[in-house]
Amino acid sequence: MTAANTHNKNAETLATKRKARPNVEILAKGVLEGDKASLARAITIVESANPDHWELANTLIEKCLVKHTSSVRVGITGVPGVGKSTFIETLGKNLTAEGKKVAVLAVDPTSSKNKGSILGDKTRMAELSIDANAFIRPSPSGTSLGGVARKTRETIILCEAAGYDIILVETVGVGQSETAVSSMVDFFLLLKLAGAGDELQGIKRGIIEMADAIVINKADGNNVKRTKSAEVEFKRALQLYPPKDNGWVPTVTSCSALHNSGIHETWDVVKAYISQAKKEGGFLENRNTQNENWLLQTIDDHLKSNFYSDHNIKAKLTELIAEVTQNKISPFRAAELLLELQQSKT
Amino acid sequence: MTAANTHNKNAETLATKRKARPNVEILAKGVLEGDKASLARAITIVESANPDHWELANTLIEKCLVKHTSSVRVGITGVPGVGKSTFIETLGKNLTAEGKKVAVLAVDPTSSKNKGSILGDKTRMAELSIDANAFIRPSPSGTSLGGVARKTRETIILCEAAGYDIILVETVGVGQSETAVSSMVDFFLLLKLAGAGDELQGIKRGIIEMADAIVINKADGNNVKRTKSAEVEFKRALQLYPPKDNGWVPTVTSCSALHNSGIHETWDVVKAYISQAKKEGGFLENRNTQNENWLLQTIDDHLKSNFYSDHNIKAKLTELIAEVTQNKISPFRAAELLLELQQSKT
Repeated sequence: MTAANTHNKNAETLATKRKARPNVEILAKGVLEGDKASLARAITIVESANPDHWELANTLIEKCLVKHTSSVRVGITGVPGVGKSTFIETLGKNLTAEGKKVAVLAVDPTSSKNKGSILGDKTRMAELSIDANAFIRPSPSGTSLGGVARKTRETIILCEAAGYDIILVETVGVGQSETAVSSMVDFFLLLKLAGAGDELQGIKRGIIEMADAIVINKADGNNVKRTKSAEVEFKRALQLYPPKDNGWVPTVTSCSALHNSGIHETWDVVKAYISQAKKEGGFLENRNTQNENWLLQTIDDHLKSNFYSDHNIKAKLTELIAEVTQNKISPFRAAELLLELQQSKT
Repeated sequence: MTAANTHNKNAETLATKRKARPNVEILAKGVLEGDKASLARAITIVESANPDHWELANTLIEKCLVKHTSSVRVGITGVPGVGKSTFIETLGKNLTAEGKKVAVLAVDPTSSKNKGSILGDKTRMAELSIDANAFIRPSPSGTSLGGVARKTRETIILCEAAGYDIILVETVGVGQSETAVSSMVDFFLLLKLAGAGDELQGIKRGIIEMADAIVINKADGNNVKRTKSAEVEFKRALQLYPPKDNGWVPTVTSCSALHNSGIHETWDVVKAYISQAKKEGGFLENRNTQNENWLLQTIDDHLKSNFYSDHNIKAKLTELIAEVTQNKISPFRAAELLLELQQSKT
């Protein structure tokens, strides 16, 4: 390495370090005071792929962890075209008009594949994005659902610390992210359209049973009649399904996000749910269970990635899956062989 | 230790060893020849909690692993009182009358709690249990679903090796075991009754979306009309749900197991499904995916039980869950602390 190279390298490292070491105290203070720029910067640190930032992110989160039992976290899902942006914009504006502070986040680990994050284009929520009491954050980058989900989970903490009362978490309703979202929110809302057909092809099985409320959007113009009959059909269908574990019977309503009709009523459902859950003690219990599950899930993810990162194990796994498929070995015996490989290592 | 003690001890060990070392070659041969006594003994070894038997069980399974693409594995679930025993008895008798060999197994890890295994009482299927072409095995003992599921999974292999064409796996429909069963069968059938009400209280959410067919039982006597209208309601409701990943649209039919009406038609649905899955390649693909999942799930279970069996980690976990609940620490940071504890050990 030449002297000039060394010099450049040192200068680079220094620059990286300077950039990488924001003052956490000041940043946390800014977040807790509700400063949007601080909040945005704090989220960037939480989302950062730079290992230098991880400890900073942990400290930041710890300073922002406050029990926000007055916040309401709502997951909103639905296939593309159902009108999620318009719904969130209208709902968000109604809420800020009532004096609430609203944060809009997104979980969409597939966005990089699909070329275009679901919230990447802020102009989709033109009015809400310039509302002083709203904070919109596009989907974090990353292809691993675990990573993206963790970032979103911690972003919720930061937004609540910054004084946002209502956190809306958007997801696309066609992948695996709905389970992750439903495990970080208090209430899960499914947007649908009348006249199923094509639209049904997109949505994942299981999402309907996850929903606390089904809202049929675009109840406007010529579509009103169809929406109303879809509402009746869904109500009837849901009667055949068992209530949720906490006793809540999912509701079916319709709305026109475009004309702001039925949106207040939708929010009334959310409020009724929260108030019932708080009265019966399920609200806090659910959040505690969610936190415990995040802890256990994170450990599980680490144990697995640690195990499968071993080259020998990875090679043997491929080999054994082939043998299992050819019925040469039972899956349980194959698992034992892989686990023995790990033990012989240590 | 006195000489007499040593002698007793040796004699004991010898006796245990003699008992513990059945001749696997002979046993496997018996199973493959379809001998019921050998099959029953082989299953007992697979179900054994005695570590001496585990290696024997592995060898036995390996000798019995043959690609049985002609077998059909059907999961049958429904809440107590829905008539599962009568349904299985009638279906089983129809099938043996056609010259098929039928094995009936059960997954019910909670039976020890509920005092009474679902298949513990063979007299529930009085005629089928004395049918030469039927083999009925009650639920294996054990409280861990993982253990019971593995035993049932391997028992399927043994039954198929013994020439059983049709494997019916029964489960109670109120717990976690349905997911395990649906991951070991080709087709999952949900038995229901007309006039939901009470019955719905028992069944778990999510099971309906798991079912390949819903069969409304007890369509007899005064109940026929109600059953028919329940059938229509369910058909209508299922139309609002997306088809399964393989394109199958779950069917709704009704039957009277008591009067053997609608049972042949139910089996026709199963046959239609299997033939469609085989034509489109999904049948083998599904079995391969299931085997791969058993492998990965077994590894995951071991990694977790290995991690949490450490006393220090267990104690720290309790402590950290309390801190997470009090919002003193984020679940992710807590997970990191626990993982560091493991690393410092090695």
